Amino acid sequence: MENIKVIIWGFGAMGSGMADMLLKKQGVDIVGVCDRDPHKVGKSMYDVLDAEQGNRPDVVIKSDIEDVVTDKCAHVALLCTDSYTKGAFDKIKWIAERGINVISTAEEMAYPRAQSPELSDEMHWIGKENNVTILGTGINPGLIMDLLAVVLTGACAEVETIECERVNSLSPFGPTVMEEQGVGITPEVFHKKTKDGTLAGHVGFAESIGMISDAIGWSLDGPITQSSEPIISNVYRETPYAKVEAGNVAGVNMLGYGMIGGEKKINMIHPQQIEPELEGVNTGDYIRIKGVPNVDMAIKPEIPGGIGTIAMCVNMIPHVINARAGLKTMIDLPVPRAIMGDMRELIED
Amino acid sequence: MENIKVIIWGFGAMGSGMADMLLKKQGVDIVGVCDRDPHKVGKSMYDVLDAEQGNRPDVVIKSDIEDVVTDKCAHVALLCTDSYTKGAFDKIKWIAERGINVISTAEEMAYPRAQSPELSDEMHWIGKENNVTILGTGINPGLIMDLLAVVLTGACAEVETIECERVNSLSPFGPTVMEEQGVGITPEVFHKKTKDGTLAGHVGFAESIGMISDAIGWSLDGPITQSSEPIISNVYRETPYAKVEAGNVAGVNMLGYGMIGGEKKINMIHPQQIEPELEGVNTGDYIRIKGVPNVDMAIKPEIPGGIGTIAMCVNMIPHVINARAGLKTMIDLPVPRAIMGDMRELIED
Repeated sequence: MENIKVIIWGFGAMGSGMADMLLKKQGVDIVGVCDRDPHKVGKSMYDVLDAEQGNRPDVVIKSDIEDVVTDKCAHVALLCTDSYTKGAFDKIKWIAERGINVISTAEEMAYPRAQSPELSDEMHWIGKENNVTILGTGINPGLIMDLLAVVLTGACAEVETIECERVNSLSPFGPTVMEEQGVGITPEVFHKKTKDGTLAGHVGFAESIGMISDAIGWSLDGPITQSSEPIISNVYRETPYAKVEAGNVAGVNMLGYGMIGGEKKINMIHPQQIEPELEGVNTGDYIRIKGVPNVDMAIKPEIPGGIGTIAMCVNMIPHVINARAGLKTMIDLPVPRAIMGDMRELIED
Repeated sequence: MENIKVIIWGFGAMGSGMADMLLKKQGVDIVGVCDRDPHKVGKSMYDVLDAEQGNRPDVVIKSDIEDVVTDKCAHVALLCTDSYTKGAFDKIKWIAERGINVISTAEEMAYPRAQSPELSDEMHWIGKENNVTILGTGINPGLIMDLLAVVLTGACAEVETIECERVNSLSPFGPTVMEEQGVGITPEVFHKKTKDGTLAGHVGFAESIGMISDAIGWSLDGPITQSSEPIISNVYRETPYAKVEAGNVAGVNMLGYGMIGGEKKINMIHPQQIEPELEGVNTGDYIRIKGVPNVDMAIKPEIPGGIGTIAMCVNMIPHVINARAGLKTMIDLPVPRAIMGDMRELIED
């Protein structure tokens, strides 16, 4: 069998990280990269990554996707451009219509039915018509606060409530994340931006709660409830991309829940900040199921967001190629797993 | 759609526990029960369970499977009779040939290719020919020391080693488990029985290690290595089914590993004993992945074995009905999940 061919659309931290990971894997080639950044366009992917090209053909980064993709030129496109389904939709459609499977990093695409049922139906039919599979995934949403909780309910005869808590550090992230999360601003600016809706915070509670409730057969009473509070630092904190004076915002504590039958059944707690250990906060991922039996899971420290999302997207490539056509989510496909052998061996006939 | 119909073959702790669980679920009926125990044969399942029959038709427990099963009389049979593939094989074949899907609790059936590749091929073809799916599952093997580790590697770009540790209590179990694990005997008898091969200990390391290595694409160098050591109690321990004098055996510590490329890559640690807390042992399930990133997971206390196996088998019913025909394992199917709604809604057209 020929090597699996992959296109990467969006060559920021996620897209370039996936390229780095793919270059270390067997049986898979990157055959095209698209990005708008003028510092990258026209350059060799290998130069941008500072990676060995070896005897591989060169891959020049192009700004126009039409210059990258021809019909069925690849098995899968990794789409690393958006956070929202609406923003990703046209790109997904364009790729799918060229007979190429799509894996999207857009947080809302991890469970697009939660907020975009009509676009989801449309993507499902686009997938079917073009015989390709469309999947959104990532570390969160995609695994930590949803799929992993679903897996653990598999050991339960009954479930009363599910609580997912992710306490993570934003220290490794760059300027975009710092801005989206409001790191370094004053509490006043934080509250103003929260009112304006200009602080993104974590995108994914609606998707995680939607995935869990659909998976186990709970019907939500209505849209989920969510709120965000600033994490005010008591000390000076600093990373390469952020400086936080004492009294200013070190991050955001997001809370969300889904009601079922008038009760808070699915609860999300997600404080994200830089340098949490400076104030004695230990990072970790927690899932607490009240049911028969109770399940109390902890992963300490948390699974890091960047490499986690990169790995989830790359590791799902074989499942997406093997799946039936249409829009799929993580609860439709076999469990994710690392790929330590030749990727071609995972492709079904 | 009509209710999903389930047969239960083997009405011990597991089979009767599954019946109890199924009676609380919507959209599913138990249509037949087979067991050899003369205290149960001829009695109503509801009387044996001490459960409300309500307006359901009676189910009389029969000793001969031919009196329970007619062609396609059920969608799924839960087979709770054996620990080994060899023992379960004829029963699986018999059910499958009657057009009924099979879920087996046999530990070896959680990954039968590990020790019975020929029987596995045969089961796969029997499944295909009769258009039914055959699955083995349970809490361990089936989830804790294998599937859950596989899921967590999904967040990893690279995996160096995987360690699964399950520290559990045998206190809730009955006389069969006490005998299989050697609880209450002297160290001398333990060593004699270990030599004779008459102490079963935990069955499943070969399956768990086989499942993990196949899932992530590692080739084992050869058969796994395993050993068992008695856990000698320093204090008197007692449960309804066992008494352990100080100096005698409170349980078994089983160790196992799989070598890949000359290195110990998958490591299993599984001490099981009654009343572990009497000597300060805290029970729990642990998965430790060295890789990119490292993952350090703990579930405390451990997910209990009995209800966990019951739940896993029942919760996989819809996936088994939906799956393509043949022999499947937990890494082939979508993730397990609790069933809190109507089971019929989970069946694909």
